[in-house]
Amino acid sequence: MNEISLIQSIARWTHAGDAPGLVAGIGDDCAILRPEAGEDLLITTDLLIEGVHFKRSTHTGATAGWKALARGLSDIAAMGGTARYALFSIALGPWTTLNYVRDFYRGVNLLAKRANVRVIGGDVSKSGQFHCDVVVIGSVPQGEALRRNGARPGDIVYVSGKLGGAAVAGYRHRPEPRLELGAVLRTTIRPSACMDLSDGLAMDLHRLCEASGVAAKLDTAFLPLAPRATLEHALSGGEDYELLFTASPRVKVPASLGVSAIGTILAGKPGTMWLDSQKLKPRGWDPLAPKTAARERSPRRR
Amino acid sequence: MNEISLIQSIARWTHAGDAPGLVAGIGDDCAILRPEAGEDLLITTDLLIEGVHFKRSTHTGATAGWKALARGLSDIAAMGGTARYALFSIALGPWTTLNYVRDFYRGVNLLAKRANVRVIGGDVSKSGQFHCDVVVIGSVPQGEALRRNGARPGDIVYVSGKLGGAAVAGYRHRPEPRLELGAVLRTTIRPSACMDLSDGLAMDLHRLCEASGVAAKLDTAFLPLAPRATLEHALSGGEDYELLFTASPRVKVPASLGVSAIGTILAGKPGTMWLDSQKLKPRGWDPLAPKTAARERSPRRR
Repeated sequence: MNEISLIQSIARWTHAGDAPGLVAGIGDDCAILRPEAGEDLLITTDLLIEGVHFKRSTHTGATAGWKALARGLSDIAAMGGTARYALFSIALGPWTTLNYVRDFYRGVNLLAKRANVRVIGGDVSKSGQFHCDVVVIGSVPQGEALRRNGARPGDIVYVSGKLGGAAVAGYRHRPEPRLELGAVLRTTIRPSACMDLSDGLAMDLHRLCEASGVAAKLDTAFLPLAPRATLEHALSGGEDYELLFTASPRVKVPASLGVSAIGTILAGKPGTMWLDSQKLKPRGWDPLAPKTAARERSPRRR
Repeated sequence: MNEISLIQSIARWTHAGDAPGLVAGIGDDCAILRPEAGEDLLITTDLLIEGVHFKRSTHTGATAGWKALARGLSDIAAMGGTARYALFSIALGPWTTLNYVRDFYRGVNLLAKRANVRVIGGDVSKSGQFHCDVVVIGSVPQGEALRRNGARPGDIVYVSGKLGGAAVAGYRHRPEPRLELGAVLRTTIRPSACMDLSDGLAMDLHRLCEASGVAAKLDTAFLPLAPRATLEHALSGGEDYELLFTASPRVKVPASLGVSAIGTILAGKPGTMWLDSQKLKPRGWDPLAPKTAARERSPRRR
């Protein structure tokens, strides 16, 4: 294996013909895009690291590849965008075979095809562990991206799907980024704030509240738990990749969207949260937290 | 240190007010850009990994940060683009202190200010080594990006600056991406092909020839060696981040550009290279090459 042949293989594995707005993909110093008039571009990067976000013993290459792309797509979904392109910077571990990399891109492709996303570039190198940084580029009509900083006191807090399922599955699942729901929210509900749930409700709601300068109160009885999930799984398990959003109580949110009203936005110290009558601390997946703090309380032990 | 506080610190360290076309930078699920009509966007990603691209013992945080951004900027220069935005996905090693990360972004900022580039996002995590994946986004007038696939038999091969200086300096230098030269080439010379020299002339010329479907012949006597650099440093040392380009012999290339004519493009098996009357094999920095091959011949022992 060498760099030139590996890049050629990746270009072959991920090749899917022309794509709208794509002038040049893999094979030059940069990829070249031609944005359409009237669209904003969304750009997100997400790391997926062996031993941190996945394990060789529990994740096939395809599951790791799927998960890497899903992390980026979920950020596009959170802004109500259409996912368009992806770039993958991968560093192979000492154990990483060409077969593993092929399987990784097989997982990428499965999800990329479903989301109509094109792989247009990246970088390859080596490391002591397998590393992937995925860049996803999406688009949204100008000025329509859903932000996380617009929640106002009195707004209702909603969450899509069920929570805690990823933790119950030991994070060996293939998450489904909520791209369709994000687009529906953008065009119909116009949430005052929206983000994806990657690190657990108690961590991500805190971020939404901090960004919006508000507090929030959740009701335990309204939290939609996944089968066999505990309250702790839902609050700090992470990786559910559902959408968390807020909307004025005057906005009708149809049951057909599959979302649950779980609480209310309050005026108060930004980031403060209550669960029923108890204060709720931000906690969940934090790779940098000291071991005695958030990480120990998380069901994830990675 | 935790993820929220680190991201807030990075946002503070890199904050530089509004930027043209930037709707939202660090702090949401995605950064939001509003491209101008008539421009193509250039996107590149480059890894910088401890023990592969730099060493803790020889590179300060600031030098590593500078180098990470320089790698991306050089790809924008190679296409004749204007660098606009950057995203950094970093994974901290077990030894990485907040001070080191601050110093890393100090190096990033020094170069970002010079190149008028804005840091607009990224990701943070941890790993066994310090990792950085830099994403750089640039722009160029529609259809004007310099590509590496247009060299034609009879074209002259040019290189900017001097070669081998990075190897002589033990790669502890702070490379200067050739953004101004790339823009001048795009507007005046219109090279038939252009790319940056990141892995050594013998590796990168091979790539240019393969992409263009041509062969090339270099003249040793014309190679512009940096002070104390050997021929081998110039051919396979890498990290010089100069520009390699080709142009028709009818195009006048003024001496004031500081570039040297070093050879000629020939018809032949794509990728074949000659140095004087000897075949020249593609060799230089390749992180994935077996140890018995390219890596052993490279002056870089990393």
